[in-house]
Amino acid sequence: MRTSGRGDPDLFLGIDIGATKVLAGLVDARGRIVARSDRRVHRNDGPAHVLAAVLEEVRALGPEVAHARGAGVAVAAQVDPRRGTVLYAPNLRWRNVPLGPRLERALGLPVVVENDARSATWGEWKHGAGGGGSDLICIVVGTGVGGGLVVDGRLLGGSVHAAGEVGHMTIVAGGRKCSCPNRGCLEAYVSGWAIGQRAREAVRADPTGGAALRASVGSVSGIDAGAVTRAARAGDRFSIDLMDATGIWLGAGVVALVNVLNPARVVLGGGVVEGWPNLVGQVRNAVRRGAQPPAARAVRIGRGKLGSLAQVVGAAWLARDRAATRRPKASGRRASGG
Amino acid sequence: MRTSGRGDPDLFLGIDIGATKVLAGLVDARGRIVARSDRRVHRNDGPAHVLAAVLEEVRALGPEVAHARGAGVAVAAQVDPRRGTVLYAPNLRWRNVPLGPRLERALGLPVVVENDARSATWGEWKHGAGGGGSDLICIVVGTGVGGGLVVDGRLLGGSVHAAGEVGHMTIVAGGRKCSCPNRGCLEAYVSGWAIGQRAREAVRADPTGGAALRASVGSVSGIDAGAVTRAARAGDRFSIDLMDATGIWLGAGVVALVNVLNPARVVLGGGVVEGWPNLVGQVRNAVRRGAQPPAARAVRIGRGKLGSLAQVVGAAWLARDRAATRRPKASGRRASGG
Repeated sequence: MRTSGRGDPDLFLGIDIGATKVLAGLVDARGRIVARSDRRVHRNDGPAHVLAAVLEEVRALGPEVAHARGAGVAVAAQVDPRRGTVLYAPNLRWRNVPLGPRLERALGLPVVVENDARSATWGEWKHGAGGGGSDLICIVVGTGVGGGLVVDGRLLGGSVHAAGEVGHMTIVAGGRKCSCPNRGCLEAYVSGWAIGQRAREAVRADPTGGAALRASVGSVSGIDAGAVTRAARAGDRFSIDLMDATGIWLGAGVVALVNVLNPARVVLGGGVVEGWPNLVGQVRNAVRRGAQPPAARAVRIGRGKLGSLAQVVGAAWLARDRAATRRPKASGRRASGG
Repeated sequence: MRTSGRGDPDLFLGIDIGATKVLAGLVDARGRIVARSDRRVHRNDGPAHVLAAVLEEVRALGPEVAHARGAGVAVAAQVDPRRGTVLYAPNLRWRNVPLGPRLERALGLPVVVENDARSATWGEWKHGAGGGGSDLICIVVGTGVGGGLVVDGRLLGGSVHAAGEVGHMTIVAGGRKCSCPNRGCLEAYVSGWAIGQRAREAVRADPTGGAALRASVGSVSGIDAGAVTRAARAGDRFSIDLMDATGIWLGAGVVALVNVLNPARVVLGGGVVEGWPNLVGQVRNAVRRGAQPPAARAVRIGRGKLGSLAQVVGAAWLARDRAATRRPKASGRRASGG
């Protein structure tokens, strides 16, 4: 553990709660993770079990945890950050869990709760790929597709804190059924679940072409996005075609975002992009060819720099931001009380 | 002309330069147009002719013009508002016209130049349908599709002042060719030019079904969006179907915007919406059915309140905003000079 060398280290906790893993980290004043610990959880474990796992991972960070001034929690969920409530986490199967207040009591620290993709966006903006520029769009292509928008240096919340759902842009009106009420969403084409679904359909429609992909996992029903990207990396033409189509759809979505928002940066991350990094080049080409020329020239498109740790860094930084905005108020109160 | 009744009226000029019309208005401190004058221009008239027309319309507003403290100009163009330059106005066929500096010299007033859809957005936000709420999306469906975004009470510019091109969201990846480099843009389905194009194709493919529409203008090549909306209003089933399809595509685009930006308000305007107001209800239904439930519940969708005068009000208000932000600096300079 590095400290500042001048008295107590200036640290905040960042906690990432996903459907399969809990990760806790201590983040210093320069955005570095100075200690981390994680464990697997099961999506059916329930809030109480996951909360206990979080507390154990926090303890596992060691005695420096005592210096943490606050905690930020990133959850794969729709959240109400004012109350610290997880409103709906489809993958965790949580509804209306007062995660923030519970963790505040258990940790004895102020806690900020935020959606995981928005936390990752803030992490990349502050300490990753966002350096410079006025704004940034982050697109996290994993099992689903999440995202976040930084506009004029602020994380965009929207009118009821639901902004940033870039996975649910319509890119094919009337197209494939999404996990949400809409059809033709970006997520219904490029997410991990959608790649798996499209691949299984394609193998059933063309058993000869898809033979290598099927053989790689033993059955059609076993094909998922991981299998497709592995087979594509191994040179399987059928799987490469599936990922090339993914790139075309992802490009269509990013062109739309670039035209509407004219961002300085677009950051692509998540397991699907990590599994098939060619997507980044395809998106760059799509924007160069298809977006409005001034916006296309202005934007830089690349992968995130923090990888899967962006959530932890971002969540810790949101807690730090919150502490910074609250400090004047607190000292004001003290002054008037004295 | 109404004045404040307390000395000189507090007025700003709003000027709207379109491909077929120049309109000048005097806008008071409550956002009301207290005088206006317009004339037709031709898209081939060129900047010098249009500038002369603007000056005549300003003079036509009467002696109160002498009280104007600044002018805002809305142009159907990509602009650089810092330099007051029209970078590219496809319908006017202008490129790199230093409109702001020229008008400043001619009027003897500070001049702000802004894109027309963004000006309309600001007009609706300040004095039209935007009242209350934290943000607003304005979609102007005319010959093309323009728009503007207000986020946290500010007009979103983007990294190079190109934000708000909601007409160029991909809604059908690989779909119809747009006027821009992209395929499948919202504009390629719902704009005036696209409705005309789709209607002519549909009549050629189904001459019997399209007979009434064709007869209403005398020839297939004469069919444009105005003819389609007129025939639809007169009850022609073929034209109603064309407009219903327009509503489905517009709905797909608005669902995407609602999911990404979670706005408090969506304002629909422009000639196509004025010609077939049913589009508003279709968009509301599409959002209720297809958008993420929290964002769908939060948004209010309706027509603009200022109609075709939103540009003039918005442009004048941008000039007023500019004057307000510059005043403290000027008085500071005076103080240090004294």
